[in-house]
Amino acid sequence: MFVRSGDEPGLDGFHHMLAYHMGWEGEGSGSAAAGKRIRPLLVLLVNASAGGEWRTALPAAAAVELVHNFSLIHDDIEDDSPLRRGRPTVWKKWGIPLAINIGDAMLTLAHLSLLRLEETSGCEIALKAEQNLHQTCLDLTRGQHLDISYADRRDMQLDAYWPMVSGKTGALLSACAVLGALVAGANKEILTAYREFGGNLGIAFQALDDLLGVWGDAALTGKSTASDLVSGKKSLPILYGLSLDGEFAARWLKGRVLPEEVNHLAQMLEAEGARDYTQESAACFTDKALQALERAKPAGQDGDELAYLANQLLQRQL
Amino acid sequence: MFVRSGDEPGLDGFHHMLAYHMGWEGEGSGSAAAGKRIRPLLVLLVNASAGGEWRTALPAAAAVELVHNFSLIHDDIEDDSPLRRGRPTVWKKWGIPLAINIGDAMLTLAHLSLLRLEETSGCEIALKAEQNLHQTCLDLTRGQHLDISYADRRDMQLDAYWPMVSGKTGALLSACAVLGALVAGANKEILTAYREFGGNLGIAFQALDDLLGVWGDAALTGKSTASDLVSGKKSLPILYGLSLDGEFAARWLKGRVLPEEVNHLAQMLEAEGARDYTQESAACFTDKALQALERAKPAGQDGDELAYLANQLLQRQL
Repeated sequence: MFVRSGDEPGLDGFHHMLAYHMGWEGEGSGSAAAGKRIRPLLVLLVNASAGGEWRTALPAAAAVELVHNFSLIHDDIEDDSPLRRGRPTVWKKWGIPLAINIGDAMLTLAHLSLLRLEETSGCEIALKAEQNLHQTCLDLTRGQHLDISYADRRDMQLDAYWPMVSGKTGALLSACAVLGALVAGANKEILTAYREFGGNLGIAFQALDDLLGVWGDAALTGKSTASDLVSGKKSLPILYGLSLDGEFAARWLKGRVLPEEVNHLAQMLEAEGARDYTQESAACFTDKALQALERAKPAGQDGDELAYLANQLLQRQL
Repeated sequence: MFVRSGDEPGLDGFHHMLAYHMGWEGEGSGSAAAGKRIRPLLVLLVNASAGGEWRTALPAAAAVELVHNFSLIHDDIEDDSPLRRGRPTVWKKWGIPLAINIGDAMLTLAHLSLLRLEETSGCEIALKAEQNLHQTCLDLTRGQHLDISYADRRDMQLDAYWPMVSGKTGALLSACAVLGALVAGANKEILTAYREFGGNLGIAFQALDDLLGVWGDAALTGKSTASDLVSGKKSLPILYGLSLDGEFAARWLKGRVLPEEVNHLAQMLEAEGARDYTQESAACFTDKALQALERAKPAGQDGDELAYLANQLLQRQL
């Protein structure tokens, strides 16, 4: 009687919405629509680097990618974003009610995947992993709460940036590293090192993403959605500029930035030191991440791949 | 560095939103705003009836109430409901973006509570319980998908009602009974009996709720939100009436029902046999629930209380 299998009438749409968001079905599906899948790669590389057999970590790798995609579905509603990876977002195609619900389903599927660690790694590890992933989801919602709360505030302080990105970006990358190491049976010291590696990697990555949001090629073309100056996102360089209370802050407080002002304002912000500050912050968290990785003593070729992935993420072309 | 404890700047609002929805804080807080808490009561009574020590089931009791409240927060957005237990809904007070996010947090807190079963009942039971609760959440989202999808359809069949309410109402009540019995260490046969008890209880309860939605005192006063005839909900008597393709169906298909038509349409529906059909359906699922409860062999005074609770739920005054 209960709705369990996938072949009930009326549930085709349910499954299609999940597969559409993942980039597997519908208009524009394919590898570009499926995203880069950095998070599951991180789980598997950390697992192998910590001496695990990577196949045992597959339930965790699938889980983090599903959690990431759950957060994208809900974030897209919360941020009123019409496009994701070049395609209409789920809420734009099916409306907000069905989109909220399918995000809830995606989150639940993530955890159902994670619990399959019981089959590969036993009860204790599966339960620890699940506690970790739920705590991570709570951190995600806290970071997102700060982000939404700040969106309409003019008085946000630079210091408020760090707890927000720790929750929004650091927490899940930290969980990827912890889950990989946990499944490998790593001890507490190694787990802590991987946790710090992932968390700092996430923050460095976000700072660099914020740099691209003002000075990246796409941002400087002045297209409406590519520049954080136009969308009004409280990114690191923008908060830095506001904290100086100089020429940039004066312009910002006057109201929405127009696409044709983007180049001029990016130059102004750079002249005030925001680009250097953002770059240095990213470098600082990159250093912390790589030092933590060293303490984690990743082994063999997988360890080299892991360091390579981190460096690739952190040296994206501007 | 990571956002974990409750005292970070900017997160007061996060905690207040959770506490407001639970009826603990803010305007109109108090026992009426906190709801009836039938689900945790069911967990604890089943647990004691199956030979458990009810305190060991508290993490599960808290979890089901939090899952229920998560679903209310998201349902209220999805159904565009401005009021819940006489108070403004979370999205109405804080907007849709923050409300989606706080629902996600509530769901996550539910699972974090459930995992504390490890402390009272050990790893194996905690993990089984968590698998069960996630499967239940997936059922909830499937039922909700059907409900939202049907809302704008004129061609919904009577048969479509059962999978929808199995997911929306049966699944969580079924989980309450299963979790209570699981923590008590019940065997497979007893677990199955309690699962059927909870699931059928939920469907019977929903059918009676649908009866009240057309013929209850509040519905017949013609207040705009109390009558399912006005809100257009695809409830059991309404679907039955539509399936007959008679006088009621003809009126329904002409467009929205006005509050002043409510009494006349309720009489029309009753004359066509929808009230009897709904009552008989509820009685049928009530019988199934009580037969399953008998198979579960609930013990002692707690078993009597459980049967009393079930009978109370199912014989609500019309």
